[in-house]
Amino acid sequence: MTAGIERAACIGGGVIGGGWAARFALNGIDVAIYDPDPDAERKAGGMLDNAERAFARLFGDDRPAPGALRFAGSVAEAVDGAGFVQESVPERLDLKREVLAEIDAAAPAGILVASSTSGLLPSDMQRDLNRSGRLLVGHPFNPVYLLPLVELVAGRDTLPASVERAAEIYASLGMKPVVVRKEIDAFIGDRLQEALWREALWLVRDGVATVEEIDDVIRYSFGLRWAQMGVFQTYRLAGGEAGMRHFLEQFGPCLAWPWSKLTDVPELDDGLIDTIASQSDAQAAGRSIRELERLRDDNLIAIMEALERSGAAGWGAGAALKDARQRLRKRRG
Amino acid sequence: MTAGIERAACIGGGVIGGGWAARFALNGIDVAIYDPDPDAERKAGGMLDNAERAFARLFGDDRPAPGALRFAGSVAEAVDGAGFVQESVPERLDLKREVLAEIDAAAPAGILVASSTSGLLPSDMQRDLNRSGRLLVGHPFNPVYLLPLVELVAGRDTLPASVERAAEIYASLGMKPVVVRKEIDAFIGDRLQEALWREALWLVRDGVATVEEIDDVIRYSFGLRWAQMGVFQTYRLAGGEAGMRHFLEQFGPCLAWPWSKLTDVPELDDGLIDTIASQSDAQAAGRSIRELERLRDDNLIAIMEALERSGAAGWGAGAALKDARQRLRKRRG
Repeated sequence: MTAGIERAACIGGGVIGGGWAARFALNGIDVAIYDPDPDAERKAGGMLDNAERAFARLFGDDRPAPGALRFAGSVAEAVDGAGFVQESVPERLDLKREVLAEIDAAAPAGILVASSTSGLLPSDMQRDLNRSGRLLVGHPFNPVYLLPLVELVAGRDTLPASVERAAEIYASLGMKPVVVRKEIDAFIGDRLQEALWREALWLVRDGVATVEEIDDVIRYSFGLRWAQMGVFQTYRLAGGEAGMRHFLEQFGPCLAWPWSKLTDVPELDDGLIDTIASQSDAQAAGRSIRELERLRDDNLIAIMEALERSGAAGWGAGAALKDARQRLRKRRG
Repeated sequence: MTAGIERAACIGGGVIGGGWAARFALNGIDVAIYDPDPDAERKAGGMLDNAERAFARLFGDDRPAPGALRFAGSVAEAVDGAGFVQESVPERLDLKREVLAEIDAAAPAGILVASSTSGLLPSDMQRDLNRSGRLLVGHPFNPVYLLPLVELVAGRDTLPASVERAAEIYASLGMKPVVVRKEIDAFIGDRLQEALWREALWLVRDGVATVEEIDDVIRYSFGLRWAQMGVFQTYRLAGGEAGMRHFLEQFGPCLAWPWSKLTDVPELDDGLIDTIASQSDAQAAGRSIRELERLRDDNLIAIMEALERSGAAGWGAGAALKDARQRLRKRRG
């Protein structure tokens, strides 16, 4: 039992929904998944295998007994008896509205409903709901069973108490809730990622670098900085002893330089897709998606454990891990 | 002695130039610094303290005897006897041209000259040089003594042999040289960083998030992914079993969504500078720049060591560290 939740419903069981199911189950919560994809059960099983492997490495004997995971035949069946509902269906507003209305009809009042959308506005998704005050966005990051961040976004109708309660529930799952102060498309994380991603696509399209070279530039330099301090604290240090104000005043004029092609959106045509897909195949060097996922998970665990040892309370994602470890240990007794 | 270099000259000794001087010296190379700032010696000393602390933690007894570090009274005096020249003066083309011409006049033929510029074109900097074939960009990332990446960019006149030789020299300093295939403003790393930075400035300006919330979003989610895999390999996994092509086809349409304000450049006016500087002060929670630098360095070391243990050869920045360790051990014994 976590923050009062004994059973959760995951509507949609793909990369994101399956990741949520694994995070719930490995925190001792029973989960019912509904996904019309006939292959969903096999895919979610693969996700759970990865997640179990990661949790065993992170928490060893402190892990709670995993919750039961079952596949339901309908939205209503999945939602029945659930204390929390997480929706993770494809990113189409019409589909989200339809599925959320089904959830809204099936779930008793007082049961929170969170959408995993990475960009749609909660106000738009609330339109057809009877109990719209309990709907909010709870946007996670892949792999959901490992990365701590969840962005909480309220719509026009969302009750403040719904946001507070969702933050408690997510924190009890070892996550770091960040409440987005204004409702905007794509929230914070995906705006930032998309900005860099667009520029990366231009660099490949224009033959400035291959996908592997771009990844190397990131992971041998600023990726290491951002993993532990983000961008503002990093730039505070780039100003040297004069600090943030000096950095901003020095950097200000550069913003207007014609450095980037950000003003245009690159067309993701067949040629560019072919280039990226084949360079990505070369970069993977024969490793399967499953192998790469495990390598990624091992690296994420190693980085979070490294940051956990930074100072008494841990640092960044290491602080979240330290909290999660203490909570699991305490719960175990 | 490293790749044949016994002495290096650092022209400009600020955050970047001082970082270069520390990296050279701690790899056993004598360094002469020239910087007209009367406070340069004190600042470079602080940088060297941080760097020594980091190298002691990383390499222990395998460290070579440090090279001598001296301050020269002129460009010519600093360059005298140097086997390699690294220029790190402020980012103004006229100043760079003037200083590079001085270096060019003082350094014998065959001695490479690399500019640390983070965005100016080497072809523009070569204009007034007699021996322009030996000039290239070698763009590092702060802290230079720790982060492995160096971007190499050739100008119109740069000889291919100059790029090859510079890559050898940088690799012998434990760095990861990436050769940029086309000469463009801001190269690869700063284009990517600037794209995200602009978007981050909008988010603060519009009151969507504070600087601390944005940093948390980054370091509790995609920052951890990018530190070890970069952006393309990460998205390969976001496509699930269907891989990169599926991800691109699914993601393609989103690029045209009106998500971001990237098409405009935020004005960095006094109000926004005040907001960011005061939020940054709050985030630092009383820690001095020096304390934050040491925290950052400890975290970077911990992350790189974590990635060093990933697989037989290390992964990403961990592979660079493993190589550096082996080379230092071999040199020692």
